Amino acid sequence: MAFQFKSVLITGANRGLGLEFVKQLAKASPSPKYIFATCRSPEGDTVKNLRELAASHSNVTIIKLDASDKQSIENSAAAVKEKLGDEGLDLIINNAGIGAPGKLLQVTNEDMIRVYQTNVIGPLNVVQAYHSLITKAGKKKGFAAVINMSSWLGSCEQTSTGGFYPYGVSKGAMNRMTRALSYDLIGDNVIAVSMNPGWVKTDLGSQNATLTTEESIKKMLKVIRSLDKNKNGTFCDYNGQIVPW
Amino acid sequence: MAFQFKSVLITGANRGLGLEFVKQLAKASPSPKYIFATCRSPEGDTVKNLRELAASHSNVTIIKLDASDKQSIENSAAAVKEKLGDEGLDLIINNAGIGAPGKLLQVTNEDMIRVYQTNVIGPLNVVQAYHSLITKAGKKKGFAAVINMSSWLGSCEQTSTGGFYPYGVSKGAMNRMTRALSYDLIGDNVIAVSMNPGWVKTDLGSQNATLTTEESIKKMLKVIRSLDKNKNGTFCDYNGQIVPW
Ligand SMILES: NC(=O)c1ccc[n+]([C@@H]2O[C@H](COP(=O)([O-])OP(=O)(O)OC[C@H]3O[C@@H](n4cnc5c(N)ncnc54)[C@H](OP(=O)(O)O)[C@@H]3O)[C@@H](O)[C@H]2O)c1
Ligand SMILES: NC(=O)c1ccc[n+]([C@@H]2O[C@H](COP(=O)([O-])OP(=O)(O)OC[C@H]3O[C@@H](n4cnc5c(N)ncnc54)[C@H](OP(=O)(O)O)[C@@H]3O)[C@@H](O)[C@H]2O)c1
Repeated sequence: MAFQFKSVLITGANRGLGLEFVKQLAKASPSPKYIFATCRSPEGDTVKNLRELAASHSNVTIIKLDASDKQSIENSAAAVKEKLGDEGLDLIINNAGIGAPGKLLQVTNEDMIRVYQTNVIGPLNVVQAYHSLITKAGKKKGFAAVINMSSWLGSCEQTSTGGFYPYGVSKGAMNRMTRALSYDLIGDNVIAVSMNPGWVKTDLGSQNATLTTEESIKKMLKVIRSLDKNKNGTFCDYNGQIVPW
Repeated sequence: MAFQFKSVLITGANRGLGLEFVKQLAKASPSPKYIFATCRSPEGDTVKNLRELAASHSNVTIIKLDASDKQSIENSAAAVKEKLGDEGLDLIINNAGIGAPGKLLQVTNEDMIRVYQTNVIGPLNVVQAYHSLITKAGKKKGFAAVINMSSWLGSCEQTSTGGFYPYGVSKGAMNRMTRALSYDLIGDNVIAVSMNPGWVKTDLGSQNATLTTEESIKKMLKVIRSLDKNKNGTFCDYNGQIVPW
């Protein structure tokens, strides 16, 4: 049976992959009842496209959420809860992420911590803050999901290059966290999955990347809609294939 | 051919596995010419046993190294370099490590960062600070090694429990870092390996653990002495078996 989520929260929804998730979900039919498109500065210049989307789609709500700030994440959960009323949250997409210069002899401790804070602790804090909402959906409907946007650069097995210390190590850490979450949440029918979006033309992926955001998100949404409990604790790529850790 | 390291540096050498490494290496014959036993407070109460060892074995040198403090790591490298003179450093064992309470809804950001700092950034800083010494050995002798003391709790594949967020996630991150190091160092004939010591009776492992420090270190030293370039970038357990990421 397809996973027909009625409510979804996306972090880093103002640019790149996050924005494209919101776009395609807003245009889908049926479109989820609630699309919580979160970003760290709702009034900022880089949020123009998202604001336009929200203006033309009443199910898109922009909410402030800074993935590097636990208090901001908790505040966002309070706002989402008010919107949802009695309902739970069906799907969380931990998409916000950053990189940093990564060469062995140049990488700084500050960058190691900053990237870990945003890419690993941020998603952890999201699960903590939204725990009651996501488990409510799992308990009521029998299925809900947390998706951690990882990267092929997080795969130990597939790594075939040095460098990328802050970023690659953070995504490896995120994958290990997905595994822990897959055990901690499944009792409430919530699965946790890491996803690799492929190499995508965004500010982060650069224009040298092989996929457009349209292609990556179209395929990832297909994978997400096909999720079931068998996928709990796995690392899936945008084609639905399992990525080795 | 066996890996006969003439010089070795061990972090967290005053208790548990680190101390036992020093003990068995000091008693081995031949014993390495230089055993740099590092710890964060050489004068401290918990360093008594190590001080006794150093007093009776002239090849054991105690050096201050706090794995959570980059400056302290750099200072230790200067002291080691002075001792080594023209020689390189054959083997680094990144052994110092800490845990923290790990339940999903209780884990704090402070603990996530503190454990990442000691267990991941510390070993990174060690490789950075000792880069010229370890690559000098690799270039001169054709082989040198960095061992990152990981844990079965760092394996995504073997994880079969929730919780352990600060610790398990840090060891997953460490494993991904081992992979990056394995590409960055091999050009100078230095390999990087993650090791799982097994579940060992130490302050960290508790007295419920299955192995004594004597057993674990005896087996790990056998594995370390058998390392060659084929093992570069792998995750080995104390029995010499490959652990899946
Ligand atoms: N593109 C690829 O090839 C690729 C490959 C593998 C994995 N990924 C992963 O996919 C995810 C999205 O990447 P992308 O390519 O879309 O990157 P992007 O174009 O650089 O967009 C990153 C998004 O994350 C947001 N963000 C960064 N830090 C944040 C914070 N502290 N709080 C809230 N939002 C924050 C950014 O918001 P601001 O506008 O406020 O900065 C932006 O919306 C990331 O997790 C990335 O690691 C991407
Ligand atoms: N025991 C097990 O079952 C087990 C299993 C898997 C992996 N491991 C790994 O094996 C390694 C050794 O563990 P263990 O069981 O021997 O633990 P332990 O008995 O708790 O000893 C930890 C050692 O690390 C040192 N240390 C901690 N933080 C440090 C810092 N900032 N700078 C320098 N030294 C620091 C401690 O020094 P102080 O005395 O100054 O605190 C101590 O010497 C760790 O990396 C651990 O994760 C152990």
